[in-house]
Amino acid sequence: MNRIPVIIDTDPGHDDAIALMMALASKELDIRGITIVAGNNTIENNTNNALRLLEHFGRDIKVYRGAGRPLVQIQELPEDIHGKSGMDGTSLPDLCQGKPEAINAVQFMENELKATTERIKIIAIGPLTNIATLLAAAPEVRDRIDEIVIMGGAALGGNKTPTSEFNIWQDPEAAHIVFSSGIPLTMCGLDVTYKSSLTEADVARIKAIGNKASTLTGEILDFYGHAIALRGNQGIAVHDAVAVAKILRPELFTSALYNVVIDLDGRYTRGCTVTDLDDVTKAHKNVEVVLDVDRSAFVDYMVEALTALTEEVKPHA
Amino acid sequence: MNRIPVIIDTDPGHDDAIALMMALASKELDIRGITIVAGNNTIENNTNNALRLLEHFGRDIKVYRGAGRPLVQIQELPEDIHGKSGMDGTSLPDLCQGKPEAINAVQFMENELKATTERIKIIAIGPLTNIATLLAAAPEVRDRIDEIVIMGGAALGGNKTPTSEFNIWQDPEAAHIVFSSGIPLTMCGLDVTYKSSLTEADVARIKAIGNKASTLTGEILDFYGHAIALRGNQGIAVHDAVAVAKILRPELFTSALYNVVIDLDGRYTRGCTVTDLDDVTKAHKNVEVVLDVDRSAFVDYMVEALTALTEEVKPHA
Amino acid sequence: MNRIPVIIDTDPGHDDAIALMMALASKELDIRGITIVAGNNTIENNTNNALRLLEHFGRDIKVYRGAGRPLVQIQELPEDIHGKSGMDGTSLPDLCQGKPEAINAVQFMENELKATTERIKIIAIGPLTNIATLLAAAPEVRDRIDEIVIMGGAALGGNKTPTSEFNIWQDPEAAHIVFSSGIPLTMCGLDVTYKSSLTEADVARIKAIGNKASTLTGEILDFYGHAIALRGNQGIAVHDAVAVAKILRPELFTSALYNVVIDLDGRYTRGCTVTDLDDVTKAHKNVEVVLDVDRSAFVDYMVEALTALTEEVKPHA
Amino acid sequence: MNRIPVIIDTDPGHDDAIALMMALASKELDIRGITIVAGNNTIENNTNNALRLLEHFGRDIKVYRGAGRPLVQIQELPEDIHGKSGMDGTSLPDLCQGKPEAINAVQFMENELKATTERIKIIAIGPLTNIATLLAAAPEVRDRIDEIVIMGGAALGGNKTPTSEFNIWQDPEAAHIVFSSGIPLTMCGLDVTYKSSLTEADVARIKAIGNKASTLTGEILDFYGHAIALRGNQGIAVHDAVAVAKILRPELFTSALYNVVIDLDGRYTRGCTVTDLDDVTKAHKNVEVVLDVDRSAFVDYMVEALTALTEEVKPHA
Repeated sequence: MNRIPVIIDTDPGHDDAIALMMALASKELDIRGITIVAGNNTIENNTNNALRLLEHFGRDIKVYRGAGRPLVQIQELPEDIHGKSGMDGTSLPDLCQGKPEAINAVQFMENELKATTERIKIIAIGPLTNIATLLAAAPEVRDRIDEIVIMGGAALGGNKTPTSEFNIWQDPEAAHIVFSSGIPLTMCGLDVTYKSSLTEADVARIKAIGNKASTLTGEILDFYGHAIALRGNQGIAVHDAVAVAKILRPELFTSALYNVVIDLDGRYTRGCTVTDLDDVTKAHKNVEVVLDVDRSAFVDYMVEALTALTEEVKPHA
Repeated sequence: MNRIPVIIDTDPGHDDAIALMMALASKELDIRGITIVAGNNTIENNTNNALRLLEHFGRDIKVYRGAGRPLVQIQELPEDIHGKSGMDGTSLPDLCQGKPEAINAVQFMENELKATTERIKIIAIGPLTNIATLLAAAPEVRDRIDEIVIMGGAALGGNKTPTSEFNIWQDPEAAHIVFSSGIPLTMCGLDVTYKSSLTEADVARIKAIGNKASTLTGEILDFYGHAIALRGNQGIAVHDAVAVAKILRPELFTSALYNVVIDLDGRYTRGCTVTDLDDVTKAHKNVEVVLDVDRSAFVDYMVEALTALTEEVKPHA
Repeated sequence: MNRIPVIIDTDPGHDDAIALMMALASKELDIRGITIVAGNNTIENNTNNALRLLEHFGRDIKVYRGAGRPLVQIQELPEDIHGKSGMDGTSLPDLCQGKPEAINAVQFMENELKATTERIKIIAIGPLTNIATLLAAAPEVRDRIDEIVIMGGAALGGNKTPTSEFNIWQDPEAAHIVFSSGIPLTMCGLDVTYKSSLTEADVARIKAIGNKASTLTGEILDFYGHAIALRGNQGIAVHDAVAVAKILRPELFTSALYNVVIDLDGRYTRGCTVTDLDDVTKAHKNVEVVLDVDRSAFVDYMVEALTALTEEVKPHA
Repeated sequence: MNRIPVIIDTDPGHDDAIALMMALASKELDIRGITIVAGNNTIENNTNNALRLLEHFGRDIKVYRGAGRPLVQIQELPEDIHGKSGMDGTSLPDLCQGKPEAINAVQFMENELKATTERIKIIAIGPLTNIATLLAAAPEVRDRIDEIVIMGGAALGGNKTPTSEFNIWQDPEAAHIVFSSGIPLTMCGLDVTYKSSLTEADVARIKAIGNKASTLTGEILDFYGHAIALRGNQGIAVHDAVAVAKILRPELFTSALYNVVIDLDGRYTRGCTVTDLDDVTKAHKNVEVVLDVDRSAFVDYMVEALTALTEEVKPHA
C-alpha cells in the first residue's frame, strides 16, 4: 500500500490533539514531520504539547518549531478556550521529555519537500504563518506540495469575530499568501466543522472505547467542550479533526470549488475568508470548500480511529 | 383608526415599485411623502419612475428628489438588473406628467419630522444616502423618527459582492451613519428577502388578479425575474416589498436584536453589514434583524394588497 | 466697489476668532452668514463663541448652527489647544446674548446660494462636515460656489497625527466629498500656516494697537500660543487667519495646482491630504495648494486689519 | 583592524550597483554574503546583475537568491527606471558566468547569523522581503543582528506614490515586520538621498577617475540619471549608495531617533513610512532617521571609494 506522505502543521490545542491522534492511528498516512506554529498558545507551549502527545503514544515522529507569532497581526492567545498551557485538563505530564529538532519548521519543510520526488500533502490546522513563510523563503517548493488541507475560515460567518474564524484571523497575511499561491487548497471551515460536532452520546461512546486514546480524548472533550460551550454551540466542534478526516475519508464530505480571498483591511472583517458562493465575482475558483458532512459516519470514523490507536501502533523503543 | 405615518425613501427600481404598490394599497399607512435617492438608477430616472407609478394609480403623494450619488463611493448603476430606465419592461408611459417638489428630500424630511408631534417611520428601500445626510444636516430630528425599516444588508453573505448587499454597498458611509445613529432600526436583509421569493405559481396567481396593479406587477416580475434569475436564484426575490410587509404584517416575520456594524475599509468586504449572530463581540444590539418569514402568508398578503389597490384608491381629480 | 460675497464656515476656536476679526475688518468682504461646525469644540460652544465675538464688535451677521459631529469619525475635542469652551482665556462674557438662526447651516447655505446670481466664496476654516452635507443634500448648488478656500490639510506632514492636519482629520469623509467635488478649491495647509507664524515681536506689535480687536487678539494669542507652543512650534501659527488673508491679499502667497486626495483607510494616515507634489500619479490637479507666504507682509496685513476693526465698523443698533 | 561584518541585501538595480562598488572598495567591511531580493527587477535578473558585477571586479563573494515577490503586494517592476534587465545601459556582458549558491537567502542569513559570535550588520537596499521572512522563519536570530541600515522610506513624501518610497511600497508588510522588530534600525530615506544627489560636475569628476569602477559608474549614471530625470529631480539621486556611506562615514550624516510605522491600509498611502517628526504620538522612537548630509563630503567619499576599487582589490584566481 502506498501511504500518503504528509506534513502536519499544528498548534496543539485540544482539537489539534484529537486530529493528531486520528492521524497517528492511520496506516494510510506517512507523517514526515510535525511542524508547530503559535496560535492556540505560544510556540513553546504548543511544541511541548505536541511532544507530550507523541511521547504518550510512544511515537518518534520529529517535531519542528516554527513561527512564534503572526506575520503582522498582534498575537492574542485564546486562553478562554484552551487554558494556560494550550491543552489544559489532561492527565499528561506537564512537560515533555524530548525536544524539537534543531532546524526550524520552515527549513524542515523546504528540505523535506526538496528531498523527495513524491508530492506531499500539508495538513494545516493552525494559523498559516509557517506555510506562508516557507512560500516566501523558498517559492520553488510550491510545485512539490500536492495539496494543503486547511482547518480554517468559513464560507459564512466566524467564531473569533462575526466574520472571521480564529486560525485565519490570527494571521490574515499568511492566509492571503497561501490562498493566493496557486497550490491546490481544501478549506475545512466552520461551515463543516460545526456540522461535525459531537453530541453527548458521541462523547460517551468515545469514552467507552477504553484505551489510552479514549481516555485522553475524553479528558480533552470534557475541558474543551466546556470551553466552547461557553460560546453557545450545540455539541462540541472538533474543528481540526475534520481536516484529517477529509484526507482519509473524503467520501464523507460535500465540497465544491469557489473563489476565496482573504480580507486584510476591514476594521470589522479582517481575516474573513470571503467565499464567492454565488459566483458574483466570476473570479478564479481557487479553493475546494467543504460545506457538509455525513456527521454520523464522521463520528463512526473517529471512534474507529481512536479505537485503532493503541492497537495498531508500537511504542517507541 | 390611527394610520401609521411614514416616509418612503426609495430608488425605483422594480422591487421598489412593488413595495410602493403594496404601500399605496394599504389603508393603514399615512404616506407623508416619497423621497428619491440614486441607486438602482440615476436620481432623474428614479424620480421619473416614482412619479409614473403614482400617476398610473392616480395618487397625489408628493415626491422629493434626493441625493444624486453616494456620499463617498463611486456610483455604479445595476443596469443588468433594472435596465436603462431603472424600471424597464413595463407598459407605463416613458415620461411622467408631473414634477418632483421644489424642495429636496432632506429639507422635506426635516420639515415633516419637525412639523408633527407624531413619531414617523421611515421605510428605506434604497441606499441610505438621504437619511444619512438628513442626520448630518439636522441631527435634532433623530428623536422624531420612530423607526427606520431598511431593505438592505444581510446577516450572512451578499448579492453585489460575496459579503455585501447592493443597497448598503452603494453607500457604506451612509449606512454607517444610520446604523450607528441610535435610532430604532429594522433590517430586512437578504436573509429574509430570498426566503420571501416568489415561485412561478405565485407569479401566475398575481397575474390572475386582473387589475391594473396585477398587470404592472406581472410586467415587472417578467422583466426583473429574468434579470435576477441570471444570478442563479430560485424564484424571484422582491426585496423591497418585504420591508413594507414587515411594517404592515409584522407577525409574518421572525427577527431578533443583534449588533450590526458596517465595514467601510475591507478591500473585499466594503459594505458588509457585520452581524454578530453569536454575540462574540458583546457589543450593543442596535438592530432588529429579520431572519425568517412565513413565505406562504407573505405571498397571500402580497396578493391581497395588489388586489386591493384598484378597488380602494380614488383617481387623482 | 463690488464686495466679495462670502460665507464663513467655522468652529471658533482661537485662530478662527482671529480669522473672523480680520474678515469683519474688511470692507472688501460681504459676509452673507457665518455657519458653525463642531470641531475645535462642541457645536454649542462653537456657536456661542461666534455669537460672543460678533456681539463684542456689535455686528449683526447671522449665525447658523451646523453639524454636531463628523460624518463617520468619532469626535475628539482638542481641549488641550482651545480649552473647555473652545475659546478659553479671553475677557469676553461667558455667554452670548443672541441666538443662532432657526434654520440650520446646510439649509442656509442652500438658500443663500440659490437666492443670488453671484457666485459665492466659502471660507472653510473648520472640519468640512457642513459643506460636504450641503453637497450631498443639494448637489445642484455646486455651480453657485465660486471657490472654497480651506484652512486644512498639508502637502507634507500633519499636526494631529504625523500625516494629518486637525481639520481634515476630524472629518476625512467630508474632506473627501469636498476635495472630489470639482469645485475650485484652495488649500491653506500647514505648509503655509506654520510659515505664517507670529513671533514674540509680532505679538507685541499687535498688542500695541490698543483697540478692542487688539486686546482680544492679545488674550487669544497668550492662551493659544501657550497651548500650541506645547507642540514645539516656533512662533504662534494663526492657521485660520491665513485663509482669510489668502482671499484678501492673494499676492502675499505662493501656490500651485496639484492633485490632492484624502486618505480614508490608513490606520496611521487617515485624514492625510495626499498631495502629489511631483506629479507621480499624473492625476487631475484639483486643488490650488498654498505653499509659501511673504510672512512679514502677512503680519503687516494682520496688524492693518486689526487696527481697522474698531475704526471702521459701527455698533449694532 | 576589525572589519565590520555585513550582509548586503540588494536588488541591483543601478544605484544598488554603485552601492555594491562602494562596499567592495572598502577595507573596513567584511562582506559575508550578498542576498538578492526581487524589486528593481525579477529575482532572476537581479541575481544575474549582482553576479555580473562581482565577476567584473573579480570578487568571489557568495550570492544567495531570495524572495521572488513581495509577501502580499502584487509585484510591479520599475522598468521605466532600470530598464528590462534591471541594470540596462552598461557594457557588462549580458549574462554572468557563475551561479548563486544552492541555499536560499533566508537560510544563508540564518546560518551565518547563528555561526558567529559577532553581531552582524545588514545593509538592506531593496524591498525588505528577505529580512522579514528571516524574522518570521527564525526569530531567534534577531539578537544576532547588530543593526539594519535601510535605504527606503521617507520622513516626508515619496517617489513611487506621493507618500511612499519605492522599496517600502514594494513590500509594506515586510517593512512592517522589520520596523516593528525591535532590531536597531537606520532609515536612509528620500529625505537624505535626494540631498545626496550628484550634479553634472560630480558625474564628470567620477568619469574622470579612469578605472573600471569609474567607467561602469559613468555608464550607470548616464542611463539611470536619464531615467530618474524624467521625474523632475535635480541631479541624480544614488539612493542605495547613501546606506553604504552611512555605515562607513557616519560623520557625514545628520540623524535623530523617531517613531516610524508603516501604513498598510491606506488606499493612497500604503507603504508610507509614517515618521513622527514632532512626537505627536509619544510612541517609542524605534528608528534612527537620517535627514541630512554633507553632500560635498559625500561626493568626495564616493570618488575616493570608486578610485580605490581597482587599486585595492585582487582579481578572483
